[in-house]
Amino acid sequence: MALVGNHRDVEPEIIDGKDARDVEKRVLIGPAQGAPNYVMRHFRINSRGYTPDHSHPWEHEVYVLKGDGFLNSEGRSIPIKSGDYVFVPAGERHQFLAGDEGIEFICVIPKYGQ
Amino acid sequence: MALVGNHRDVEPEIIDGKDARDVEKRVLIGPAQGAPNYVMRHFRINSRGYTPDHSHPWEHEVYVLKGDGFLNSEGRSIPIKSGDYVFVPAGERHQFLAGDEGIEFICVIPKYGQ
Repeated sequence: MALVGNHRDVEPEIIDGKDARDVEKRVLIGPAQGAPNYVMRHFRINSRGYTPDHSHPWEHEVYVLKGDGFLNSEGRSIPIKSGDYVFVPAGERHQFLAGDEGIEFICVIPKYGQ
Repeated sequence: MALVGNHRDVEPEIIDGKDARDVEKRVLIGPAQGAPNYVMRHFRINSRGYTPDHSHPWEHEVYVLKGDGFLNSEGRSIPIKSGDYVFVPAGERHQFLAGDEGIEFICVIPKYGQ
């Protein structure tokens, strides 16, 4: 049976600590919704917040919904904004940083990265 | 190496015929970009257009970016709008229809559905 929901109705996980700042993560479609292969998550990073600078053995497929910021990856800092897509290959170091207005994006990972 | 692009710079495939009307499909992240597992596509359906009413043995994970419309699925017609996510399980009959303003969404499929 098809499932429809709104991202605003999903309870966020707040990620704010040593390695990340002001990040809201929502799992929209994952194993709990019956997804067999990959997981769709919604992220909001508030003004000047950031995700961890890390790497892992799975890829990210990202689409930027609102706002702007930067992807830091392998020594480069790449501006990203609404309407952009981002592919981060498995094993590549990466960090997402929000600009003044914050940034929202969809980030899809394989189920085994969950 | 991370890849960043804008969906507006991707050449669309226009789908308009017997089974579908006024659909623009853009493959943002797929095998050509190095994606190993799943494919991120951007769809725009213009006012009152629609995708085929069909089924296939792979799932859809969708996020609605702009506009509104309907998902027809297994005899139900479900309103969808900006900010909604949609999971269509493998094998389930489905059709996306745009309202007056058109609709834009991201749709992720497994690589084997490409």
